[in-house]
Amino acid sequence: MRSPIDSYLADLYTDLLALTSGTPYQGIPAMADADTSKFAIALATVDGHIYHVGDAELPFSIQSISKPFSYALALDDNGQDAVDEKIDVEPSGDAFNEISLARGTGRPANAMINAGAIATISLVNDEESSRFERILEHFSAAAGRQLQYSEAIFASEMRTGHRNRALAHLLRSFNIIEKDPTPVLEDYFRACAVMVSTNDLAMMAATLANGGTQPRTGEQVMSKEAVQRTLSVMTTCGMYDDAGSWIAAVGLPAKSGVGGGLIAVLPGQIGLAIYSPALDPHGSSVRGLAASERISADMGLHFVRAARLGRSVIREHYDITQVPSRTRHTEGAVKLLAEVGIRAHIVELGGDLLFAGTESMVREISELEGTIELVILDLRRVDEIDQIAVRMINQLADGLAAEGRTLALVQEHVFEPLASIQAFPNRNEAVEWAEFTLLARHGSPELVPTEVAIRDFAALTPLESTDIARLEALMEESRIEDGRILRTPGQEFGGVYFILSGKVVTSTVQAGRLVRHATLSAGMTFGEMALGGEGEQTTRVTVEGRLHLKKLSAAAINRLEAEAPEVALRFWKAVARDAYTRVEANIKDSENPLH
Amino acid sequence: MRSPIDSYLADLYTDLLALTSGTPYQGIPAMADADTSKFAIALATVDGHIYHVGDAELPFSIQSISKPFSYALALDDNGQDAVDEKIDVEPSGDAFNEISLARGTGRPANAMINAGAIATISLVNDEESSRFERILEHFSAAAGRQLQYSEAIFASEMRTGHRNRALAHLLRSFNIIEKDPTPVLEDYFRACAVMVSTNDLAMMAATLANGGTQPRTGEQVMSKEAVQRTLSVMTTCGMYDDAGSWIAAVGLPAKSGVGGGLIAVLPGQIGLAIYSPALDPHGSSVRGLAASERISADMGLHFVRAARLGRSVIREHYDITQVPSRTRHTEGAVKLLAEVGIRAHIVELGGDLLFAGTESMVREISELEGTIELVILDLRRVDEIDQIAVRMINQLADGLAAEGRTLALVQEHVFEPLASIQAFPNRNEAVEWAEFTLLARHGSPELVPTEVAIRDFAALTPLESTDIARLEALMEESRIEDGRILRTPGQEFGGVYFILSGKVVTSTVQAGRLVRHATLSAGMTFGEMALGGEGEQTTRVTVEGRLHLKKLSAAAINRLEAEAPEVALRFWKAVARDAYTRVEANIKDSENPLH
Repeated sequence: MRSPIDSYLADLYTDLLALTSGTPYQGIPAMADADTSKFAIALATVDGHIYHVGDAELPFSIQSISKPFSYALALDDNGQDAVDEKIDVEPSGDAFNEISLARGTGRPANAMINAGAIATISLVNDEESSRFERILEHFSAAAGRQLQYSEAIFASEMRTGHRNRALAHLLRSFNIIEKDPTPVLEDYFRACAVMVSTNDLAMMAATLANGGTQPRTGEQVMSKEAVQRTLSVMTTCGMYDDAGSWIAAVGLPAKSGVGGGLIAVLPGQIGLAIYSPALDPHGSSVRGLAASERISADMGLHFVRAARLGRSVIREHYDITQVPSRTRHTEGAVKLLAEVGIRAHIVELGGDLLFAGTESMVREISELEGTIELVILDLRRVDEIDQIAVRMINQLADGLAAEGRTLALVQEHVFEPLASIQAFPNRNEAVEWAEFTLLARHGSPELVPTEVAIRDFAALTPLESTDIARLEALMEESRIEDGRILRTPGQEFGGVYFILSGKVVTSTVQAGRLVRHATLSAGMTFGEMALGGEGEQTTRVTVEGRLHLKKLSAAAINRLEAEAPEVALRFWKAVARDAYTRVEANIKDSENPLH
Repeated sequence: MRSPIDSYLADLYTDLLALTSGTPYQGIPAMADADTSKFAIALATVDGHIYHVGDAELPFSIQSISKPFSYALALDDNGQDAVDEKIDVEPSGDAFNEISLARGTGRPANAMINAGAIATISLVNDEESSRFERILEHFSAAAGRQLQYSEAIFASEMRTGHRNRALAHLLRSFNIIEKDPTPVLEDYFRACAVMVSTNDLAMMAATLANGGTQPRTGEQVMSKEAVQRTLSVMTTCGMYDDAGSWIAAVGLPAKSGVGGGLIAVLPGQIGLAIYSPALDPHGSSVRGLAASERISADMGLHFVRAARLGRSVIREHYDITQVPSRTRHTEGAVKLLAEVGIRAHIVELGGDLLFAGTESMVREISELEGTIELVILDLRRVDEIDQIAVRMINQLADGLAAEGRTLALVQEHVFEPLASIQAFPNRNEAVEWAEFTLLARHGSPELVPTEVAIRDFAALTPLESTDIARLEALMEESRIEDGRILRTPGQEFGGVYFILSGKVVTSTVQAGRLVRHATLSAGMTFGEMALGGEGEQTTRVTVEGRLHLKKLSAAAINRLEAEAPEVALRFWKAVARDAYTRVEANIKDSENPLH
């Protein structure tokens, strides 16, 4: 189906085609009779997709839209301080062709007016290769294709650009330009004569939106720092003497050119480009301004509206008694956990961890009573973690540790900057850890038995001791080494395995990656899962550490069914009860306990 | 424990206390000998929490920081156009006390320089109550407490404010001020003499960050539109003649005052305020500028860095064959679904739905082959949905419908702006709907049976027909009306219920709200859950429509166990298998099928 955005742009295009005021730039004869019926809008996303309408492939000269890109190149060549020394970053409030040199120093007000842009060109490094070659390569890298410049427009400007020639010599006289100004001026004219399409400009703008990385080629064309600086200057100085009303109405860093082009940038999201050669008195494209205002308003792109909400990142907050682990505990342990379980909290986070949202989360946890010994941050629903959030979470972990308390994480994959904090792949394992930690701190050793007798298995509690004895007599005992795989997916039901001591891990291979599910320990059983679904084992079961096991094999169960059906009956009844206990546990873990 | 932010601010405070350059404002004798050892930083979040360090309760005069708040009041009183007519929004690049009136019209360049601010005061409505009372109420509402102004500072400025007096008369001469300028000037002086603490300013800034709603009182002090306009003007004109370097270095809308105060706003997140009376030559607080730069850099608040990433909002994308519903289908139906199930896709979304992320999602779905008939958007992990995203999703639904395809949603609660799109409370129900829709479109009617015979129940498939007959003989048949509650939480195991036709819904009451879980239909059983856990029913089971039921009561099962243990044995074995089939299904639903 047709994308809603294409339909939107098509409608907008038709509306604005009706705007026929303004005239092409007369300052450069080769551009004076540009076809004012031409009109194009292109919108490029930071993942490199372009929506466009109208004459989006029609080439025209980039003119002043070259300035931010030359400025970024100069910043990366010389560093910010060296560039600042020559060119200020203040709005001049003047027209693009004003002199605007600081009294005494001759320092241009900013790099978006001609004086500053000419000075910028002189700062582009030309030791290895020719200066203009580097500029053209730079523009091309941002556009994502090889660009060329127009000899005709260059020649025309060479003949008529007296004011700019004057500026270049003025700048030389103040030693802002330290070399012969003539080749600098020529390269400036060439840079302004680079031919681009509206689609090219949209990609160049998207490269700025994307922190300097070209969305399609993935090339880092400019440093993040240069981009931040460039977008800042575009914000205050990009639209010449109507920068203020532009920011008020559109609210995006932008740059217009007398060629009829205009770009606007929503950092992190979009590069917008418009072409329409009829200009207003300020030298900006009439349809360009109108289209920008409409798109900004309709799509909510104004920097104030597009601002991220500092909503709390906490989705849920509860203690572990509300989500007991699947680990079977002794009765005494269960009693104690009912009491001390409230000393371990789970805090589920979601969305983006920026300063504001993370701050309120850190605050809430900082203010928890000292009786809360363990805090588990569930990061599985978090989208993005900002540097400052990383720092705050690490500081939170340190702060809690200093008070003998512990912060732990739940995250499917380890996130390096937080790697120093203990983490678990799922909530069940984190809760299990919390339960055992609390039992060890607040209970007597026997609450966490290392060896469980068959008669104490929760799965068998519905049975009389005589039945249990009968079952145990049919079991095969074994001691197994670390790493042995006991069950693999596809096997049919092989019996019920009783863990007397040690641990096993259930896992599956998904998309080539081994994913751990539950950790089963003393007192727990496995193997019954193969009864379900297609009657096949669905997980791999691997020994962790040393395992002491008793197995009631499928064959043994068959024997029992033949020899003592009523015992077998009670056994299966117990298995069924046990199974439904798990159904409950699983539903609980997948559900949010609070709604 | 101590908040990491408090520690951070404490360190910053100590560092910057060392900065001793600058002098207090000399223009107003009553302020000339302010104590330059005083220093405070306060940071208020949009949820109303304040972090502060230093003399954050010390009162001082607000001076020029009154300008944005008066401006917002004038905007809400007169509307934007009327205000624009009198005051432009362009950076003057001049000092705060420059004349900066447009040639001919006398229109001040913006509302942040004195000329514009005095004109602003004249635009504050004074029909109902006195103008200054309204201004003071407005400031107080933003601060969240009743403020007062200093007679001494007011009187001092009345005596010495000749330049401002001149400005007022100039503005009157140009008819920018249409009334007697003297009372306007007096109210301007009073507004500048309002006494605030650093904490007050932080809350006032947070009110701007929060779209005009005071974070603590919840009062909408200014309209969103006035706030957007005001922050835009602060961006280009807030820092007088160093607006450009401010935006480059700090990147936040801001306002400074010669009283030594400074505010900066990160829309949606933070209001920052700093007090230190030693000023630089521009009239901005020396420590204020330094602290702002440090905080912006350390916390990533620069508008370019704080920009939201346009990352796709799609978390997972798969077809329903990977997550079959818990509905038991006939064999024929299962076969058909294995084939046509790929015609229904589930797309899980997460994070904030803004333009950029939503755009790429809509694009991906728009580009799906026409053979994909049903698209289910799972919105359960979405945090925020922007207007433009709402529009795009509705357009997507219409676009698909136009091609005879269907968009459906999964969302825990109905979101009004998307209410016209069919929605389901959980994935299972959505998949169930998709399965039945595809079966109806691509299969023959008998694939979706209305009446299921006991012998065809999936739960009993392991059993011989003689066993099934024996069980059926023990069942009680009944037909039940809509709305009847068959099972309630806490009941012990009452037997197994077989749905021959019709539907039941399982639900629980959580936090006073009824939460639907599964819908069970013909061929499914319920009641076994009571076997698990504490041996109690955990959900309420309610009839939906007309229900035809057969029940194998607990008593009947007991009889069977006594009379025919081997049949009972096979029955319980079947129940156990069935249970583990559910364990599998639940794990699948809670898991992400793709990792």
